[in-house]
Amino acid sequence: MTLDLPRRLVAEALGTAMLVAAVIGSGIMADRLTDDVALALLGNTIPTGAILVVLITILGPVSGAHFNPAVTLVFGLRREIETKAALAYVLAQIAGGIAGTLIAHAMFGLPLVELSTTVRSGTGQWIAELVASFGLVFTILAGLRARPESIPWLVGLYITAAYWFTASTSFANPAVAIARAFSNTFAGIRPLDVPAFIVAELVGALLAMALASWLLAEPKPLPQMRPAE
Amino acid sequence: MTLDLPRRLVAEALGTAMLVAAVIGSGIMADRLTDDVALALLGNTIPTGAILVVLITILGPVSGAHFNPAVTLVFGLRREIETKAALAYVLAQIAGGIAGTLIAHAMFGLPLVELSTTVRSGTGQWIAELVASFGLVFTILAGLRARPESIPWLVGLYITAAYWFTASTSFANPAVAIARAFSNTFAGIRPLDVPAFIVAELVGALLAMALASWLLAEPKPLPQMRPAE
Amino acid sequence: MTLDLPRRLVAEALGTAMLVAAVIGSGIMADRLTDDVALALLGNTIPTGAILVVLITILGPVSGAHFNPAVTLVFGLRREIETKAALAYVLAQIAGGIAGTLIAHAMFGLPLVELSTTVRSGTGQWIAELVASFGLVFTILAGLRARPESIPWLVGLYITAAYWFTASTSFANPAVAIARAFSNTFAGIRPLDVPAFIVAELVGALLAMALASWLLAEPKPLPQMRPAE
Amino acid sequence: MTLDLPRRLVAEALGTAMLVAAVIGSGIMADRLTDDVALALLGNTIPTGAILVVLITILGPVSGAHFNPAVTLVFGLRREIETKAALAYVLAQIAGGIAGTLIAHAMFGLPLVELSTTVRSGTGQWIAELVASFGLVFTILAGLRARPESIPWLVGLYITAAYWFTASTSFANPAVAIARAFSNTFAGIRPLDVPAFIVAELVGALLAMALASWLLAEPKPLPQMRPAE
Repeated sequence: MTLDLPRRLVAEALGTAMLVAAVIGSGIMADRLTDDVALALLGNTIPTGAILVVLITILGPVSGAHFNPAVTLVFGLRREIETKAALAYVLAQIAGGIAGTLIAHAMFGLPLVELSTTVRSGTGQWIAELVASFGLVFTILAGLRARPESIPWLVGLYITAAYWFTASTSFANPAVAIARAFSNTFAGIRPLDVPAFIVAELVGALLAMALASWLLAEPKPLPQMRPAE
Repeated sequence: MTLDLPRRLVAEALGTAMLVAAVIGSGIMADRLTDDVALALLGNTIPTGAILVVLITILGPVSGAHFNPAVTLVFGLRREIETKAALAYVLAQIAGGIAGTLIAHAMFGLPLVELSTTVRSGTGQWIAELVASFGLVFTILAGLRARPESIPWLVGLYITAAYWFTASTSFANPAVAIARAFSNTFAGIRPLDVPAFIVAELVGALLAMALASWLLAEPKPLPQMRPAE
Repeated sequence: MTLDLPRRLVAEALGTAMLVAAVIGSGIMADRLTDDVALALLGNTIPTGAILVVLITILGPVSGAHFNPAVTLVFGLRREIETKAALAYVLAQIAGGIAGTLIAHAMFGLPLVELSTTVRSGTGQWIAELVASFGLVFTILAGLRARPESIPWLVGLYITAAYWFTASTSFANPAVAIARAFSNTFAGIRPLDVPAFIVAELVGALLAMALASWLLAEPKPLPQMRPAE
Repeated sequence: MTLDLPRRLVAEALGTAMLVAAVIGSGIMADRLTDDVALALLGNTIPTGAILVVLITILGPVSGAHFNPAVTLVFGLRREIETKAALAYVLAQIAGGIAGTLIAHAMFGLPLVELSTTVRSGTGQWIAELVASFGLVFTILAGLRARPESIPWLVGLYITAAYWFTASTSFANPAVAIARAFSNTFAGIRPLDVPAFIVAELVGALLAMALASWLLAEPKPLPQMRPAE
């Protein structure tokens, strides 16, 4: 990565802002247009998956396209990003995410900031966030080993699936969870419920990292024959 | 680009016509088949995204597959298309777009031209068009740098998302906006509301161009060592 | 193509059978599960687009994956398939298509053959079939020139869009139209209405071939300098 | 394949677990959110297709990403996996599948294990499972010959289509069928009905293998000229 840090941080903030604007904006649109909650979730899922493919493809070469503190944490622990840059990434993601909330609200004529009243709590939800985040980080780590150029599609498709198969609709991202706390709409989450989500997400991410480091280890090289002297 | 201008203009007109026929035609079909507006928007979104991938792939080598005056403007300012050709492109796009409206109406047994009565106006709508167009042009410019062969997918997926996350359902294209003014159906827009949409779209496009020229700049090359004499 | 004709014919029959089984089967399933016709069309569209990508990818290397007499006609006129083989292809497609109808009916517990009573007639429908078929053949010819390895996706996405933007839901295939006449279900067509559909489809295909042969012509090579003697 | 068997077995168990969690979890989510069964099936289909693309891509290099005893059987008969490993694969798939059921139930706050009461029986259902499994195995074998790097997409798209065009919604996988017997939710199947499904799936797989071995055979090489002495 030869780009300077400011550009990388702008890319992280911009990407997270567009991701959150897509998540919250499509939630508002879908919720306004139908009374069928499954249809609203579909109208929330398709834009989220699609924008992820786009954002990771176009911003990947600039910043790595994390857009997610749990992902940045894992890459930090794997020493693929320096600690100081990782901290700056997380701040840029959180700031960008909140900006995305403001943009979505501005487009739909809502107060720029609201606190969500949507309760998302309980054991099932926490297991769901752990599973969602485990799956996301494992997809990234195993995808990087199997076919790195496909990461944008893999992440977009994974989240498309996880919106439906996890009981929490798969936040799987601490910065996005924080940003969604500021929107009292379809995609919102009560601020009080955010910390437990973040803990579950980080635990899931670390479990995925641990499994990946064993499961995806390169096979031991065969012992080299020393050429006869 | 070695092709002569007439072929390129026919490609721009044909592509914009098929795009508009898909946008308006699928809007009519969806609107006739259901009372659920979210479902109608889904039936409008999927064909639009799909046909964009197709048209940009197959006509890209002929004309560059702009199909959009905002895109042609940006490439003109970047001196990637000569001014005279750019003006001809815009006229071909507008003519093709209106032809697409006629084709859709002919298929669905409607009067060939109608003026839309659908009001699309207000600050939220204009912010939405600015955001939609900013995102589209940024996707194209950043996509061209990151993975040019993926542009058809990136644009198709971006518009799929933007139909839902922008309050205006993302026209993001002055030629398409004009063509949709001539259809009093699901995808229509009142002629009176078109100029403000076009202004917002062009502003969004120019902002994306400005950001891209800074964010995506190549890193400065390291100073070259002069070989010792 | 080094494969012998019998294998190619089996591939054409198998592919058309699976395509028709998908079209009719998903129509029956969707129609049984919902009263919303737009949702039924969506449940018909997604499987059709998806199976086309699969079938063209896996059988393309065997037979070219036409599955469509209009496509075979165009390749015959372009002398890319010998006349005798082309005729055999068309028979295999029709036989395979009807077999697909039987398979779908067997799975869903219906009489193996029924005659459809669904009227699909009138100027709008015929224009729609002409447009649908024009777009399909143009997509194939321009796609082969632009990016041949993407043909499966291009055709799948094109039909996904055309199901919605054409008033006829885009049959665009004489063999499939014949097969659908034998099914009195969601995807059926009254036998009486089939001939006009086939005429419109062939006219659309020939128009696309004519346009493609002009629009996609290779630029004339520059006159070669003869090296000085 | 240079990886050791334990890693391969964990990959098979993990992949089947995530697949079943996606199938059952999204079924529960969809069923809870809507009364429209077609919409519920769509909310079940999209996550299943998406997660298949992800899982086969990321775990393919580790274990081959069978996740399906019918697939392992075919590869065993083709001598592409040793018999002992194949048996271990099947056990890992069944164990992983049941674990996936538990995970889905835990997330959605259901008893960890229930026996399904959903009757899935009768000639139409069995023909459907035979067709579904035939199509899946033929897609894999023909896809491996035509474009092996596309297998993840081909399988994901095939299952997306088959959920709709087969009367059984395409289980097509004995390990998944067993796992679904332990869930009394949208995706469940009465334990009594599982054996006939498995028989139909294995018959379909073997038929596909037989057809593929003839249809996809390499053409006989031309007789080699012996160089003149």
